[in-house]
Formats: sequence, C-alpha cells, structure tokens
Amino acid sequence: MIEHTCRIRVRYAESDQMQFAHHSNYIVWFEAARIELLRAIGVNYAQMEQGGYLLPVLEVCAQYLKPARFDDELHITARIAEKPRAKCRIGYEVKTDYQLICSGHSLHGFINAQGKAIRPPGAFVQAVEKYFTSSRD
Amino acid sequence: MIEHTCRIRVRYAESDQMQFAHHSNYIVWFEAARIELLRAIGVNYAQMEQGGYLLPVLEVCAQYLKPARFDDELHITARIAEKPRAKCRIGYEVKTDYQLICSGHSLHGFINAQGKAIRPPGAFVQAVEKYFTSSRD
Amino acid sequence: MIEHTCRIRVRYAESDQMQFAHHSNYIVWFEAARIELLRAIGVNYAQMEQGGYLLPVLEVCAQYLKPARFDDELHITARIAEKPRAKCRIGYEVKTDYQLICSGHSLHGFINAQGKAIRPPGAFVQAVEKYFTSSRD
Amino acid sequence: MIEHTCRIRVRYAESDQMQFAHHSNYIVWFEAARIELLRAIGVNYAQMEQGGYLLPVLEVCAQYLKPARFDDELHITARIAEKPRAKCRIGYEVKTDYQLICSGHSLHGFINAQGKAIRPPGAFVQAVEKYFTSSRD
Repeated sequence: MIEHTCRIRVRYAESDQMQFAHHSNYIVWFEAARIELLRAIGVNYAQMEQGGYLLPVLEVCAQYLKPARFDDELHITARIAEKPRAKCRIGYEVKTDYQLICSGHSLHGFINAQGKAIRPPGAFVQAVEKYFTSSRD
Repeated sequence: MIEHTCRIRVRYAESDQMQFAHHSNYIVWFEAARIELLRAIGVNYAQMEQGGYLLPVLEVCAQYLKPARFDDELHITARIAEKPRAKCRIGYEVKTDYQLICSGHSLHGFINAQGKAIRPPGAFVQAVEKYFTSSRD
Repeated sequence: MIEHTCRIRVRYAESDQMQFAHHSNYIVWFEAARIELLRAIGVNYAQMEQGGYLLPVLEVCAQYLKPARFDDELHITARIAEKPRAKCRIGYEVKTDYQLICSGHSLHGFINAQGKAIRPPGAFVQAVEKYFTSSRD
Repeated sequence: MIEHTCRIRVRYAESDQMQFAHHSNYIVWFEAARIELLRAIGVNYAQMEQGGYLLPVLEVCAQYLKPARFDDELHITARIAEKPRAKCRIGYEVKTDYQLICSGHSLHGFINAQGKAIRPPGAFVQAVEKYFTSSRD
C-alpha cells in the first residue's frame, strides 16, 4: 500500500452560496493529493508527462459526508491499495480535524501523446513495486 | 422519467495541458444541466434556495470515455429515472456530435439552512410527480 | 470598431459565500466573450492555435460595480475599439437586465508555440481590417 | 507597509492547453495571498465575515510577464503600501525562483451583509494601524 497525506486550505473562491466548499473542488483536491503522493514516492508527474506518459482520469467518484467551509484546513489522504497494472486506482479521504468529511476514488490508465493506451513507464513501475512486495500482490 | 438536454461550449479556461477539458469541469457541467432540468419542469433552484430548501450533493461519479476539448459544443443530458423520495438521483450523459464521451450521476438530499435533512418542498414534489404516474412508481 | 455580445448564465459553482458570483469568474467570462467575438468575425481561435498562433493575455483588469448572482443571465459585450497592431486590446462590459455591473479590458500579443512574439496571422489581420477602414485607423 | 509572502504550487487543473497556468487563476491566488496577509497581522477574514463585515473586490488588475506552469511553486507577495481608509488597495507580486512573472493589485471596500458601504471593523483598523505610524500616514 502507498499512502500520503497533504494539507489544503479551502480558498474563498472555492466556497459557494450554500456556505460550503463547492463539491467540484474535491475533484481538484484529489488530483493535488495524487500528485503529491507520486512525488512522495519519487515520481514527478510533470516530468513524466514531458517524457510522453499521460495519466488521464477514467473515472472519479466522491461521497460527501459533511461540508468543508472556507478557510478550513483539510487533510487529504491519497492511497494506492492495490498494485497498479494496466489501470491504477487511487482512493481518497478528506478530513478536517480528523473527522472524515469526504471519501472517493479515481481510476487511471497511461496513454501516450497520441491518446493510445500504453504500459506505465519503467520509473513508475519501479517506484511503486517496492510497496507491493508480498506474494499476494 | 424526466430528461433534459442543454448545450455547453468548453471554455478555454476549462482546458488543461493534456489538451483535454479538465475532468473536474464535468462535475460543474452536471450541475448546470441539473439546474436546467429543474427549470424545464418549473422548478427554479435559485428561488427554492431562497425559500430555505438546499439540495447539496451527497455523491457524484463520472466515467470518462473520450476527451472533450476546448471549443467543443457538448450536449449534456440530465435524467431523473426514478421518482425522488428522501433522496434524488440524477444521471448524466455528455455527448459531442452524438458520441457519448462521459456518463455519471449525482445523489442529493434536501436540507434546510441549518443543515438538517428535510422533506422536499411541495412545489418540487408536485413538479416531479406528474412524470412518475404509473402504479409501479 | 468590432463588438459582439454573448450571454452567460452564472453557474452555481461560480457563486461564493458572499452570495455573489466570485470576481475571478469575470476573467473567464471575458475570455469566453472574446472567443465569441473572434468567431463572429470569422476567426476560429481553436484553429488559430492549431496553426501555431497563440494569443496569451498580457494584462487584464476588471472594475466591479454591482454583484452578479447565481442564475443571473449576463450579457457580456467584447469590443475591439482600436485596430490591433503588435498588441490587441479588448474591452468588456457585463450587464444584467441592461444595468452595467462590471467593465474591464485585456491586452494580448501573438506568440508562436516556442513563446516568441510574432506578427498576427494573415487570416486574423484580414478579418479585423475591414472594421477599421477609415484613414485615421 | 504590510507585506506577506505565501507559497502556492500550480495545480494541474489550473494549467491550460497553452501549457501555461491559466491567467484567471492568478486572481484566485491574489485572494489566497490577501487572506494569508490578513491572518499574518491577526485578522481572520472568515471570522470578520461572520461578524458581518464583507470585503468585496471593487477592482482587480494583473500584468502577466512570464508564464507559470503546472507544478511550479510560486511565491506570492501581498502588500498594503498605503494605510487603508474607506478603501483598501493591495498589491501583488508573483515570482518563481525569484523571477517576477506577474504583478497586480486589487481594491476593496467594506460592506455589511445588506451590501451597504460601512467603516472597517475596529479590529481591522487596530491591526493595520501599527504598520502605518509615521506622521505622513
């Protein structure tokens, strides 16, 4: 398993007239948390894209349990629970003061600049492999 | 069943460096399509909120089949397939030139300004009821 | 002078907890209005970019006179008052029900894909020239 | 003079198909930097709003000198150079690796929840006053 938590403060522009952080922003925060998770295991997503490997989102889901509000400091945990193969699934938990307010996941597949599905780059495979060494992985 | 289709042109600000419309925007477009569906059946969401009925998102999911790109004109269909009760589920399909590029759904529940779950307002119930008149609904 | 007005309805996601349309959205609406103005005079910005001509923003300003709110239908007028040369200045007026709520402008210069300042493409020059035919232009 | 610098990393969702951070995001970053400047001098903007004092934007301008790109870590300096009176002007500088890429300013005035212009709250006046003690202020 790979897990990483980052902090994001809710911006004013992210609030809505319901006085909540608008639900679409969680999708953006998931992405920010995902990129920080990759950085934490030595994968620089910006460089990976420059190398011709894109990792678009195939699916995203979020369950909203409690609202976040402007200026809340959120703890966003991204987690790869299963060894990525052709596709990579990442789970997310968003907490304020250690109360879970949102959970979700995203599903990804590597493509090249022409949009064709490709195998993950070697650097990515090596970076994630050491976290999934048990026989059942 | 209630169904309504609206058109949205992908804004430049909604593009990303992958040359795609960023996936978070679909969540915003779902919402725009949802509000137009409500308007089409005589429910003005802005007025409903002013009347103290909020309809926050409890869950949202999207599957991305093909990318949309800047300046594409999207046809976004919102659909209430089952009669709303305590919760209201809305499905979405996003098409460009009649090719499906994204599908998804959202789940909603009414709350009052204090955040307490409440029954839907009478005007909403009346507006949707006529679309679900068969005995099995 | 070249002038074009488009309509944009304020999205829920564009509202903020002050119950106003967040001021950053006007910058996005200016851009949408600018692209529609270009389309109206026969310039397809998406195709122009594919042809290697980018028109980044060098400067943007907005004065906010009155708030817009969720679900307001805005009339956004983009205007090129002076014949574009190396730089192109576009003015904007945002109205609700014919009341001016915001005015602004943006300044642009053409660059190529390598980021180098270049002359505008011939198709752009031809499209705008017919609107500035007097001797003093 | 009051000055405060915060760091913001450009999100993927903030990139556009020109491979730049879209220019509208700077307006959002200015706001984030403004709220951190206020926090640094002991003014919690969220609480100030709860107390009935809103500080909407009357004007915003930005000059874009060089592009920011996805994953760049930006240093955003907000600066109140003149003692705020009825209106408050804040200047901004955005840097990457100590190179200036954008400068701008915003202008604000206090209003109450009914939208009426009001004097700044005492806590705000006290917080800023100590930074402007010279006779010419």
